[in-house]
Amino acid sequence: MTEYAKGLEGVIANESALSNVEGKAGRLSYLGYHIDDLVENCSYEEVVYLLHYNRLPKQDELEAFEKAFRTDRELPAGVIDFLKNAPKDANPMDIVRTGVSMLGLYDKRATIGEPDLEKDAAIALSICAKIPVLVAAFHRFRQGLELPPIREDLCEAAHFLYLINGGEVPTDRAIRTLDVALTLHADHGMNASTFSARVTVATLSDMYSAITSAVGTLKGPLHGGANEGVIHMLEEIGDPAKVDEYVEGKLTRKEKIMGIGHRVYKVLDPRAPHLRKLAVQLTEELGEPKWIQMSERIAEIMRERKGLNANVDFYSATVYYSLGIPTDLFTPIFAIARASGWTAQVLEQLRDNRLYRPMTLYVGPSELMPVPPIENR
Amino acid sequence: MTEYAKGLEGVIANESALSNVEGKAGRLSYLGYHIDDLVENCSYEEVVYLLHYNRLPKQDELEAFEKAFRTDRELPAGVIDFLKNAPKDANPMDIVRTGVSMLGLYDKRATIGEPDLEKDAAIALSICAKIPVLVAAFHRFRQGLELPPIREDLCEAAHFLYLINGGEVPTDRAIRTLDVALTLHADHGMNASTFSARVTVATLSDMYSAITSAVGTLKGPLHGGANEGVIHMLEEIGDPAKVDEYVEGKLTRKEKIMGIGHRVYKVLDPRAPHLRKLAVQLTEELGEPKWIQMSERIAEIMRERKGLNANVDFYSATVYYSLGIPTDLFTPIFAIARASGWTAQVLEQLRDNRLYRPMTLYVGPSELMPVPPIENR
Repeated sequence: MTEYAKGLEGVIANESALSNVEGKAGRLSYLGYHIDDLVENCSYEEVVYLLHYNRLPKQDELEAFEKAFRTDRELPAGVIDFLKNAPKDANPMDIVRTGVSMLGLYDKRATIGEPDLEKDAAIALSICAKIPVLVAAFHRFRQGLELPPIREDLCEAAHFLYLINGGEVPTDRAIRTLDVALTLHADHGMNASTFSARVTVATLSDMYSAITSAVGTLKGPLHGGANEGVIHMLEEIGDPAKVDEYVEGKLTRKEKIMGIGHRVYKVLDPRAPHLRKLAVQLTEELGEPKWIQMSERIAEIMRERKGLNANVDFYSATVYYSLGIPTDLFTPIFAIARASGWTAQVLEQLRDNRLYRPMTLYVGPSELMPVPPIENR
Repeated sequence: MTEYAKGLEGVIANESALSNVEGKAGRLSYLGYHIDDLVENCSYEEVVYLLHYNRLPKQDELEAFEKAFRTDRELPAGVIDFLKNAPKDANPMDIVRTGVSMLGLYDKRATIGEPDLEKDAAIALSICAKIPVLVAAFHRFRQGLELPPIREDLCEAAHFLYLINGGEVPTDRAIRTLDVALTLHADHGMNASTFSARVTVATLSDMYSAITSAVGTLKGPLHGGANEGVIHMLEEIGDPAKVDEYVEGKLTRKEKIMGIGHRVYKVLDPRAPHLRKLAVQLTEELGEPKWIQMSERIAEIMRERKGLNANVDFYSATVYYSLGIPTDLFTPIFAIARASGWTAQVLEQLRDNRLYRPMTLYVGPSELMPVPPIENR
């Protein structure tokens, strides 16, 4: 039988200048800037600009970009109607997938065929601006609550928390925490959702189609969703004193511990230390050290016993939980952050497009058969 | 620079027993049955069963399958509301993409994680049953008309035409024509939309996410949409007497003639002769031979001058036009037919799943740079 790389493992599908995932070094950079440096010196908005335009903005460019970002948050009435009338127990990722797709109906700029990159960059920003509002609006409506008025004086992180919290402006610590989390999740090489966005847009379909594909792909537990699993684990443990017993039990039964180890980062997931630090600060401020205590002890045992480190999902779970975000919005928040990378990768794909059309290895009957009459089947 | 196969050209992405596309021989078969034989002996419903269950149905199996197919057509009220309130000038492919995504909100069987193939086959059938109703309902509503009552006594082809036509049961010739067109478009190896569906579901996301990705991918003119171009060409020519001048002009200017030649089928697209025959019969019955006369002459010139044959899109354009279907529903009809192949390929993917996670070739800055202060950028 013909050999091939199942799941395209090790196969180069395209080139990208956006993010460099260095597994062995445990390093992640966007456009040549280390994420440590970006987290220290840049807002999430600067990072989105960097990804969309492939360079850091000057002061006036950033101001114009932030203004465009903040004034593009209002959802069309048809989308609001959908969110109000959607089943309250719907999976929020189904809401984001449907909502992004529906936004495409109301954006006359989104055409198919030869790309217009300036227009596509504006659509990209619009999608990044609206996904957080989609998520927050559904969350408010499903509780029978109103969405607070959209504001233009808050950054992305602050505005999302403001909406989720029903109109209360979050603390600087909370804003900074989510801002960093968004930066850390913005782009990450050729993951499955980003790949699906590129496959979709490469037929010269539109940006909304591409991001809709990405959302649906991220929904799967082999991609998004790992940090939800971390919270379920922490809830199951419930008490820092019970961590050792729990983890030992898992290890004895050879079961997986959520959020530990990484497929690519063999030494350290470079995003994890940032989220760990934020989780510590946040839980201290809230006076709820239980979650981080449990996390720290799990990480310690796994490092000692297995030589594995906690990954980005491990600490983002505690961070989001401490920000008061319900567990089923963790993957949608991943989508909010990654939308910047998805749209940037779609723009990059369109700059030098080629249809993806791999081969399939036919493994069906080698000889043609006549169709038997139905009574003889 | 590292060499790689751009667009994954020539790269095997997966294996499939569903359709065998034999480019050199000009042959297409599903599960070992030549499409000529399937068109002659089977209904579209039998072909969907074949694709979903990988064998032809016995009489009682077919009856149960047809019953399940026909009783799964009603759209949830929320989806009907969306279709009624959607912008009347929306691209129908955006409607199908959003509609399929929204159907997922109302189907509690659609869960993520470890697949349940029996349940997934039921969801697959449900999607195949509902996409035609989505398309027809939007088409009726955008004209300010009602959707005729859903019926259970008509086959897929007949029911779709009945809905589109506002409640008039189509002629046997029209039903047979669309039935054959659906069979011919059901599956076709690893095309871009099918690939996107497999990439999406391979994260163990759900069937609706996968088919939503496929619809968005098919929307692009490098994939779906070629037959719309054929109609625009025929309308531009307008008269059989003007074909020679038009085609010669195109050839002189080295412009592309829509619907001629095929990337894979170098000799003959095996689907084209069936659609040609149907187009001839249909236009004769309607007493409107102009379209097929123009088509035949274009095909003749291109065969003589370039050695290229008309492909499936070339004749499907005239077929759909003659069935009274508006041009902007041609790609949605492609989606109606291909939904059977998409869902079958998703089921096949889930039977032996592996996440798609190719590599990207990093082409950004090779050295890390410090983030400059904003005033120095």
